[in-house]
Amino acid sequence: MRTALDFLIAAKRCEILGLEQLAVTGELVGGISQLVHALQKERGVSNVYLASRGARFREQRVQRIAECEAITATVRAAFDRLDGDSGRMSDGARLFSRIAYVLHALDTVPELRSRIDGLAIAPEDAFGAYTELIGGLLAVVFEAADTAADPVISRALVAMFNFIQGKELAGQERAVVAAGFAGGRFDAGRQQRLLHLVEAQERCFQIFAEFADEPSLAAWRASMSGPEVAEVERFRRIACTAAPGTALKADTSDQWFECATRRIDAMKRVEDQLAAGLLQLCATKVNEARADLQDQRKFFESLEHMTPRAPAPLAVFLGEDGQGLTPDGQPAPVLDADGLSPRLSRSILDMVRAQSGRLQAMSDELNTARGALHERKVIERAKGLLMAHRGLTEDQAYRMLRQTAMDQKRRLVDVAEATLALADFLPAGQSDKDRPSRG
Amino acid sequence: MRTALDFLIAAKRCEILGLEQLAVTGELVGGISQLVHALQKERGVSNVYLASRGARFREQRVQRIAECEAITATVRAAFDRLDGDSGRMSDGARLFSRIAYVLHALDTVPELRSRIDGLAIAPEDAFGAYTELIGGLLAVVFEAADTAADPVISRALVAMFNFIQGKELAGQERAVVAAGFAGGRFDAGRQQRLLHLVEAQERCFQIFAEFADEPSLAAWRASMSGPEVAEVERFRRIACTAAPGTALKADTSDQWFECATRRIDAMKRVEDQLAAGLLQLCATKVNEARADLQDQRKFFESLEHMTPRAPAPLAVFLGEDGQGLTPDGQPAPVLDADGLSPRLSRSILDMVRAQSGRLQAMSDELNTARGALHERKVIERAKGLLMAHRGLTEDQAYRMLRQTAMDQKRRLVDVAEATLALADFLPAGQSDKDRPSRG
Repeated sequence: MRTALDFLIAAKRCEILGLEQLAVTGELVGGISQLVHALQKERGVSNVYLASRGARFREQRVQRIAECEAITATVRAAFDRLDGDSGRMSDGARLFSRIAYVLHALDTVPELRSRIDGLAIAPEDAFGAYTELIGGLLAVVFEAADTAADPVISRALVAMFNFIQGKELAGQERAVVAAGFAGGRFDAGRQQRLLHLVEAQERCFQIFAEFADEPSLAAWRASMSGPEVAEVERFRRIACTAAPGTALKADTSDQWFECATRRIDAMKRVEDQLAAGLLQLCATKVNEARADLQDQRKFFESLEHMTPRAPAPLAVFLGEDGQGLTPDGQPAPVLDADGLSPRLSRSILDMVRAQSGRLQAMSDELNTARGALHERKVIERAKGLLMAHRGLTEDQAYRMLRQTAMDQKRRLVDVAEATLALADFLPAGQSDKDRPSRG
Repeated sequence: MRTALDFLIAAKRCEILGLEQLAVTGELVGGISQLVHALQKERGVSNVYLASRGARFREQRVQRIAECEAITATVRAAFDRLDGDSGRMSDGARLFSRIAYVLHALDTVPELRSRIDGLAIAPEDAFGAYTELIGGLLAVVFEAADTAADPVISRALVAMFNFIQGKELAGQERAVVAAGFAGGRFDAGRQQRLLHLVEAQERCFQIFAEFADEPSLAAWRASMSGPEVAEVERFRRIACTAAPGTALKADTSDQWFECATRRIDAMKRVEDQLAAGLLQLCATKVNEARADLQDQRKFFESLEHMTPRAPAPLAVFLGEDGQGLTPDGQPAPVLDADGLSPRLSRSILDMVRAQSGRLQAMSDELNTARGALHERKVIERAKGLLMAHRGLTEDQAYRMLRQTAMDQKRRLVDVAEATLALADFLPAGQSDKDRPSRG
């Protein structure tokens, strides 16, 4: 028969196992960050290679591919280390399902590369294929953040996810603007796309700033003080204010590319710091929890040497709703008549209360971090729904949601949720009809 | 090196393990429902026994205690069956911590009983001790509902939790009103307490009705059509409208008690049905998931006999935010050029997408069920905070929150959250100062 002490220890062991899995996840996320960066570079050089009909970046491309291959092997190894078979991962199903998608996508990369080699794919299709793979990798980081059971680590993962995503959007911006300058002009569609990418980046970095710890924030602020930031803004202004049809100097494209690359490289240094901090955090947490368990065990052993007396009866229950929770979410206190309560019983009860209170606080913090992820997901999906059913661009869909929220004085996420709730009533749109013929 | 297929299977296995644990939890919740009922009866007869200075219910009490003992052994055995050591329970730490509290509380029951035997405890203190233990058991059901990873089972657990809690409040009402009639009068405090218990019951059954399935709801409605329901309302009216100091006939107490007991027994029959339905649901879910896994494996084996060709490259990514999700939360579709995509690759991708989409839908539904629990927790804690810091009764605190919500046209839960956010700024109240001297 297991006792209260057994379950106290079981609760602690649950925490430790969860943290150990998180440490593995932390490594994985670090690896994904590297792989995303390498894929961004491979995407960039492949784009130039294709656009120049194989004249430029042949050598660089070979290098980039080798780099990607090496990092892919690391990430695959990290996937292998996930404790998939024991089912120990809490909510592992969604994470594993995302990983399955990525592994499948990675299997398609050799074929993609050989089509690029042979100039047998349009630059924008190649760009899209890399972007999709990166999206799949980001979805893994998203799930890792969403399933983390420790609030501090969850916050760090939310910060990391938003940072990687912001950097990826910066990478997409680099490509869009470079193509515009190279082509000598920005039409309204490209300008709108640029504005959207800039806004989406800002949203990502804003959420990052909400969830990052102080050192990471400081590193981020420092990285954004370089001269390339003002330069990027200047190029953006030129791109956005060029009247349609205005011819731009083509060599601006290379200048922009270099400058945007410096900005992205600065981001990468911050990201490396985030990844290192995440690993450190996981290690610290695991060690702390193990030390706690050690202490708890020692304390219990010392209890066994005390003469056990019958424990005191429970007394008046504070709350009246039968839930046994005090205002701060701990089990209702026991108001023993003095002298009746043996120390043994009280010590255990104190410990149970402390543990419950701590777990409750953790769960509250977790809700905050997951709330941010949930909002993001809901807004993305509402946007997608409007795109599919109303034939809007992503940017138009976002503006529509935002305008509605402002008009109705509601939060953006509430409007997005209301939109999703109406999904069944919307007529099937363009995209839905198109899909089967394309699939 | 694990493949996409391995991770698809790992995701399914995660689900199955989670469901198997939920099946154990379902049994546990059924046992707790029985134990709460038995404790309610033991609490009732102990109260009469103490109030009559040992003259009444001596025999009945012995019976009730034997019944409680038997059910306690079953519940302890169910605790033992929880897979505590393997750490497989997702978010097990909070559940285990609540169980530790209950096990500790159960250890104090023999001492409580012997004090009741010797008439060495006031009736209200004995009542409070039983109520507190029941509160601890309810907290276990709450955590079980909160940690369930399957949305349908989570909904059933939310319904069950609210039902057991509503029934417990009905039991408390029975005691409060019986004491009032027995004493021959209802003062304002007792009347307010009664009104609060009635309102709180209604809230519980309202949430129950929101989350229960159709058969349970039908059973609940049928159970509430008996003559005892109108009778209970009549007694409530007498109790609430009696001017302070009015003498009431003492034999009304027994009539009330019988009538309230019939109502509670009718609730118990619904609760038994809920518990049976929950077990059935868990069993069905586990079997379905196992059959799915079987199908998946067979399908994969059939794939291995196909000639594997290089899979098609990924193509244009629909979303632009790098998250790789389509409007309905599935990974972005791959728009293969026809003929390029081998069937093998497409089948796997279809399966990954279907699984991701299903898991996403489950996670959305789960959020809804957990949202209801979260709101309840937040409101309870805000109430407790106001009680502690403003010296309000529970009822006053609730009315204050509700009034503020109405005045500010905000949701009750939002006002409660705002209240909790202000916690640090509130001065330490009565309860906080008292606690150490009592503990």
